[in-house]
Amino acid sequence: MADRSTRKPWEELRSILESRQPGRLHDFLERLGPAETARSISRLGQDDQKRLLLLLEPADAADLIEDVSKAQAVDLIEDLEPATAAAIVDAMDSDRQADLLAGLPGASAEAILEQMSPIEAEDARELMSYPPDTAGGIMIKEYLAYPRTARIGDVLADLEANREAYAGYDVQYLYVQDERAKLVGVLRMRDLLFPARTSTLEQLMLRDPLALRADASIARIVEFFERHRLYGVPVVDEQGRLAGVVLPQDVAVATRRLSDAEFLGVSGIVGGEEIRTLPLLLRSRRRLSWLCINIVLNIVAASVIAYYQDTLSAAIALAVFLPMISDMSGCSGNQAIAVSVRELSLGLVRPEELRHVFLKESGLGLLNGACLGLLLGGAALLWKGNPWLGLVVGGALAVNTLVAVCIGGLLPLALKRLRLDPALVSGPLLTTVTDMLGFFLVLSFATAILPRLAGS
Amino acid sequence: MADRSTRKPWEELRSILESRQPGRLHDFLERLGPAETARSISRLGQDDQKRLLLLLEPADAADLIEDVSKAQAVDLIEDLEPATAAAIVDAMDSDRQADLLAGLPGASAEAILEQMSPIEAEDARELMSYPPDTAGGIMIKEYLAYPRTARIGDVLADLEANREAYAGYDVQYLYVQDERAKLVGVLRMRDLLFPARTSTLEQLMLRDPLALRADASIARIVEFFERHRLYGVPVVDEQGRLAGVVLPQDVAVATRRLSDAEFLGVSGIVGGEEIRTLPLLLRSRRRLSWLCINIVLNIVAASVIAYYQDTLSAAIALAVFLPMISDMSGCSGNQAIAVSVRELSLGLVRPEELRHVFLKESGLGLLNGACLGLLLGGAALLWKGNPWLGLVVGGALAVNTLVAVCIGGLLPLALKRLRLDPALVSGPLLTTVTDMLGFFLVLSFATAILPRLAGS
Repeated sequence: MADRSTRKPWEELRSILESRQPGRLHDFLERLGPAETARSISRLGQDDQKRLLLLLEPADAADLIEDVSKAQAVDLIEDLEPATAAAIVDAMDSDRQADLLAGLPGASAEAILEQMSPIEAEDARELMSYPPDTAGGIMIKEYLAYPRTARIGDVLADLEANREAYAGYDVQYLYVQDERAKLVGVLRMRDLLFPARTSTLEQLMLRDPLALRADASIARIVEFFERHRLYGVPVVDEQGRLAGVVLPQDVAVATRRLSDAEFLGVSGIVGGEEIRTLPLLLRSRRRLSWLCINIVLNIVAASVIAYYQDTLSAAIALAVFLPMISDMSGCSGNQAIAVSVRELSLGLVRPEELRHVFLKESGLGLLNGACLGLLLGGAALLWKGNPWLGLVVGGALAVNTLVAVCIGGLLPLALKRLRLDPALVSGPLLTTVTDMLGFFLVLSFATAILPRLAGS
Repeated sequence: MADRSTRKPWEELRSILESRQPGRLHDFLERLGPAETARSISRLGQDDQKRLLLLLEPADAADLIEDVSKAQAVDLIEDLEPATAAAIVDAMDSDRQADLLAGLPGASAEAILEQMSPIEAEDARELMSYPPDTAGGIMIKEYLAYPRTARIGDVLADLEANREAYAGYDVQYLYVQDERAKLVGVLRMRDLLFPARTSTLEQLMLRDPLALRADASIARIVEFFERHRLYGVPVVDEQGRLAGVVLPQDVAVATRRLSDAEFLGVSGIVGGEEIRTLPLLLRSRRRLSWLCINIVLNIVAASVIAYYQDTLSAAIALAVFLPMISDMSGCSGNQAIAVSVRELSLGLVRPEELRHVFLKESGLGLLNGACLGLLLGGAALLWKGNPWLGLVVGGALAVNTLVAVCIGGLLPLALKRLRLDPALVSGPLLTTVTDMLGFFLVLSFATAILPRLAGS
């Protein structure tokens, strides 16, 4: 027992896998809980992970796959034979199926789809046809819909007869369709409690119900649920036909996923989420793909310094300030980017309103540039006692701050018009431009008054 | 008409405000829609914004306040007399009230609470007592709860009698409490459809229902709804008493709000969200408060360069590489931070597993450091034809990359143990350390072999 309590859960998991006892494995995972299961699996080697999935019943394996993160799930499923993977995917919810399959390389996903049951595969293919960050991508196909001529009594009878099947649906509304499958009305479950059983749905339903188009963005859906406290919103295609239902709990998950992806992207984790159990070479390659772009941008910016080498050797103190001006201008510009990205997403500014943003940012840039320039110039003066040095670095920082906030403010608007993601692309673009300009400003000012700086 | 179509909506809004016709204003806002209303208000001056709220009925003003972002809402309400503000806040939903009041300065919020209706104020005070990013902070007080001895017939009678009052509740579950208000069971609305009217709730209810503690974090709640497809979860206090209900749509909104706050924080927008209609001096002061911390950190890092001035003037080419080494190490470290922050939030790693992260990152750091060092060293060699220069800058970048990814990987774990927000604090700390170390490595390597570099 003493041994057992200090033993890590994945060590125990490994020994259970060696014993090849499905029952013991099932009980152990049950006791471990989803969070610890995810962590323990991440500590197993690829072979043990595969052995684990093969030892479980497909339904249990599906539960396990639904409990871990998408990156981990893709990694687990990828190593299996298509037939084994298909049995597991068959047992998952339709939207999770689509999500997982969309994360796999195209050929692997196709191989699994071919081995799945035809109905499950068809639903999964339909959901996969929508981008994952749209209403179509997060909707579910499990909803209740009736023709408008149906009577309350028919609906109650249908609900009672299919009680078992509908138990998993858990939808709070009944949708009403016309002859062409167009969504024409909605009723709440509790609206069935009191009316006469002979009333038709058409008499009782709320007409022209709120609905979202399948291509609505996650931001748009969050906005919808912020305004309307509903338990689900129907999704319609271009002809107004009911295609699925978006549940608010799936929106919460999609929102978190989207913001996680943005955070990773801004931090330079690209080409798929990284978990530290992925093979070292894959992790290294993905991170390097981003770093190599950055090193090229850096070399471009640094070429400005190389060009002014003579000035720099005549006034070596300037070298101390170059990295500071690069970093500070980047900080100022990033603040402006963040405000523009937010104002765009709140709808407070439109991509074409460049002039409005320019006016707002240039005022602030003058003010903050003056403050920061005075600070840094003052520091330079105190350090070397040379007011000209202070003037050069302070002046350069002031001008570069003004430019950085204006570019930072405008860039997200311009990128939005080009349909690029402002949050992801603005940063590297901004720093390259402000680095180059900052180096140029310091070194060209300095060149112009070099005799007064020499020896600093 | 030609004039009207080219006129901006806020120009029309301004002229309606001048005409002082509440009816015209009401119609205009109705036609404009919430998104355009928010944008138009943001273009009005403070005086016009105040006039607008005063011209509307309190209920209409409350609708308008609920449609705009929190930062904008706080800005609008702040300028009003407490009595006027209280009339508007009284007409808002309880959780939105609490949210808005919590965003106001303490004294203003207190002044408004004193003028509100006592019942509304009490609910708002209770909700304000919970941190906004917890279950208590986002729960609603509008739920249906009955004693366990109640009969189905009683419940149906109560639902029918209070139809009007409950219409705004829109809760899909009935909660069952014992004599001490403890939550003991739950029923779905549709469970009321079929059973005999004389059954008691205790006979039909699902026992020991899932519930969240009032201090559960947003991440925990998202995880809950990811696992359980429910339309609401009861929130209980430490004694297990029912305190409120969290709806999934509010979780989606809270998630987005949290990730927005993180994005703004990482970008250096601190002390409250910035919208560009806030007064220039306030915007400037908030942004400067963050920039001034950065300028101090930068001066600390640059002091390393100042210390090695003589080496630098003997081999001026090094100055070209200093900003690059600072930037590249920052990029590598940020990638490791992002992976750790994600693994922490997915529960794949625990704050005390420093050794596991260190082993994973050091391997990757050696590999990526070698690649990046070869790249940069090669570039230096090509440029100046001096292999020693290549060795110094390449070697320094290699070592600094290794250190940066290890620090970046470990920092979020350490900060988590200190209960600081890893996403916000890791960045500035990392860059200061890697800047200092990077400058030190380049310049101390160079000093050691200075004769071979001289003239570069």
